[in-house]
Parts: sequence; C-alpha cells; structure tokens
Amino acid sequence: MKTFGKKAWVIAEGFIPSYGNGPKPEFESHETACILNTSNQKAQIEITIFYTNKDPVGPYKATVEAQRTKHLRFNELKDPEPVPKDTDYACVIESDVPVVVQHTRLDSRQAENALLSTIAYSE
Amino acid sequence: MKTFGKKAWVIAEGFIPSYGNGPKPEFESHETACILNTSNQKAQIEITIFYTNKDPVGPYKATVEAQRTKHLRFNELKDPEPVPKDTDYACVIESDVPVVVQHTRLDSRQAENALLSTIAYSE
Amino acid sequence: MKTFGKKAWVIAEGFIPSYGNGPKPEFESHETACILNTSNQKAQIEITIFYTNKDPVGPYKATVEAQRTKHLRFNELKDPEPVPKDTDYACVIESDVPVVVQHTRLDSRQAENALLSTIAYSE
Amino acid sequence: MKTFGKKAWVIAEGFIPSYGNGPKPEFESHETACILNTSNQKAQIEITIFYTNKDPVGPYKATVEAQRTKHLRFNELKDPEPVPKDTDYACVIESDVPVVVQHTRLDSRQAENALLSTIAYSE
Repeated sequence: MKTFGKKAWVIAEGFIPSYGNGPKPEFESHETACILNTSNQKAQIEITIFYTNKDPVGPYKATVEAQRTKHLRFNELKDPEPVPKDTDYACVIESDVPVVVQHTRLDSRQAENALLSTIAYSE
Repeated sequence: MKTFGKKAWVIAEGFIPSYGNGPKPEFESHETACILNTSNQKAQIEITIFYTNKDPVGPYKATVEAQRTKHLRFNELKDPEPVPKDTDYACVIESDVPVVVQHTRLDSRQAENALLSTIAYSE
Repeated sequence: MKTFGKKAWVIAEGFIPSYGNGPKPEFESHETACILNTSNQKAQIEITIFYTNKDPVGPYKATVEAQRTKHLRFNELKDPEPVPKDTDYACVIESDVPVVVQHTRLDSRQAENALLSTIAYSE
Repeated sequence: MKTFGKKAWVIAEGFIPSYGNGPKPEFESHETACILNTSNQKAQIEITIFYTNKDPVGPYKATVEAQRTKHLRFNELKDPEPVPKDTDYACVIESDVPVVVQHTRLDSRQAENALLSTIAYSE
C-alpha cells in the first residue's frame, strides 16, 4: 500500500478536564491524538506542547510501528513532564515518516459524556 | 454534474463501543463512513483496517452506485472478519473513482448519546 | 476584505432525525449548512441532495447576500421537495462566488442534545 | 521550530447560546477560537464578525505571543461591540504571522453539555 499522510500536524485545541464520571479508564475525561502509520517503517514521533502563559514543553517522544495505529492519550504523557489538567494547551506533532492524525476528546465531567473530533491541521 | 472528491481517504480514529442504550439500530453505538459518489459510474471501494497490535486486515469490499451515497457502518463489515468492539482501529478507504468521505460516531454507552463527525483526510 | 472560500462544497453525512426533545425551534433536531459569503456580491447557491436508493434531487436554490452569513437548515428546504426525515443523504453545494461552508447537526432525540460539526469538503 | 499555519482562517458556524447549566465559567455555554502561534514573533490578530441581517462588525483585535496558544472566547469580545447571544454569526480571523485555528463550542443549555469542534477553513 501507498504511504498516506504528512510529517507535521497541529492541534490548536487542547484541554484535559480534571475530573469525570463513569468507570475508568473508558469514561475518564481524556484527549487523544489518533495516529496512523501506513508506511513500512517505524514512525518516530515528537510532540511539543504549547501553553498560554509559559514556554513550550517537549519534545515528548513516541513511536508508531509500521502499519499500526496508536491512539495516544495526552494524560499519559509523562516525560519531560505531565500535561497539566484544566489548562489550555495546543500541540505540534512531527514524524519522520508520513502519518495521519485525528484529534478526539471525551468529556465526562457531567453525567453524560460529550465527544468532539476533528482531523488535525497538516503541512 | 462535475465529479467531486478524491480516490483515497484516511480515518485515523476508530472505536466501536461494545454496548449502548436506546432502541436498536438507531441508538446502537456505531461508527460510520459516509461515502458520496457524484460520478456517473459505480465506485469500487476497498477498506483496510489498521490496529495497534496486529497486522492490517482487508481489503473489505463495497460498492457505491453512480450518484448515490452510502453510509457504511463499520460494525456491518464481515468479510474477511468483523471489526472487533472496544478496540482502537484506523482505516484507509480507496476508490476507483473520486468520492467524498465523512466520519461519524454515535456513542450511546451512557444514557444520552454523543456524536462526533469530521471530514476524513484525503489525498 | 479579500474574498474567501471555494465555489463547490460537499457534505457526505446527512440525516435529519424525525423527532426531538425540548422547545422548538431551538431544540428541534436539525442539520445546518452554515454558509459565509465574504464577497461584495450576492451568492447564488444551488444544492443537490443525494440519496442511497434514488436519483439526486435538486437544485434547491438559495441566496446569501454580500458580506452575510446564512445558516441554512435542511429541514426548511421545500422546493423541489422536502428532504425526508430518518433518511441518509449527502449534498453538494455550489455557488457562483466563493463561499465557506461548515456543517452542524443538533440531535435532540434523547433528553440531552448532541452536536456535531465539521468543515465541509471543498474543491 | 518551523512556523506552522496560515494567515487567514474562516469559521462559518457561530452561535452563542444565551444560557447554560452548571458552574461558571467552565460550564457557561461558549464558542472558542483556539489559536496557536508557533512563530518567534507576536501575532497581531484581527477578527471580523459576519451576520445574517446586518453589516460585518470589526476588526476585533487580539494578540497571541510568540510560541503561545490563546483560546479566545467569543463572548469575551467587547470592542467595537459584544457579540450578541442567540444570533447566527460567522467570522474571519486574520493574522500577520502564520497561525493555526480550531473552533470549539460547549453547549450547556440542557443538563448535560454537548461539544463540537472542527479545524477552521484556511487560505
């Protein structure tokens, strides 16, 4: 199969609610970057997080194996530091091979969950 | 009418919840790829599903008649194998004529349903 | 101001639920095509609706005045025929001047409403 | 880091509900333009709001510092005039350096909140 995608993606909207309702982890409030690597080689991913009032943090590193998808939860990023809850952020996702990135949030702060999703911006 | 669209589309986010609330099939949790074929010939569609921990599966085959739309539910794909529930996946949709693909999920796991939709990534 | 947008837009996902909860018209289930005309001349809009099992219907005609936005509800289209409820459809929106189209659905079939939105596909 | 984005963005769908449920400000119904400036210089932003029945209003001015994100709520825009509630609008966001814009709405009119998000249209 042909390799699909781009090497740089941007998600301008980020916010991890600090609480939620319903059994964890499936109903824990979370933001996810869904990354698909259709290529035949492992993708080395670098994520940089931007904030409103402080310098960018990163790169956070991840890998997506050849012909695999990874649904990366931002609340699982730990190194160099966890992404704070209840804080506006944005991110740039760079890869050494083309990938496709889609952004999803499950917000379970109220009794019923809410979902949003959009394709990220690519260059 | 002019023919609109592209021959390859990517949905990086996929997840079919294993349960739902409300009368079926309208409130069964589902993911849908809405495909529009504005051309004057039948579109031969091939779908490949990508996973986190195993090799891609496919192609699943479908057709969309000339000047018709098909709203394809991933939980109705059977051959070569059903798409497992509660499992992260992603997909590539290829067509022999240009089509337009939009992705929608109805999540009815909690009492009230949640919706997401985004235009897929195209090349 | 510069004129923004394209002359053809495609929404592959369409479905008007036949019922809803909450006071009308604000909580009536509906699909909307939000059209922005930033140009200095009136936009003549033609909408064609595509179905799963029958020929396309249209064109439905609308206008958006210069430097105005119109949030067009599909359940208000009447001529040549109303768009049926509980039926999958898709649409092509063509304009004689560049416009921008975004697609939104409010689904109020259950007690709490659900929303989806995405930028349409443009050419 | 490379600078990502475009200098003009369009959000065709806008509507600020006049009421909501839940503690403010987090559950106040709102529309947000999430703007990311990955460049090394301050972004001067100009927002023009378009309506259904009256002339466009603006520019509203904002800045996003170098390497920062700003999640701008439309209900906080005051000059030249507040954006009215319960009114359809659309907007054009222009910047003197490339930025990325994503659009999000939290609708808390009913007991449970609903979310929508989409990448804006860029040129």
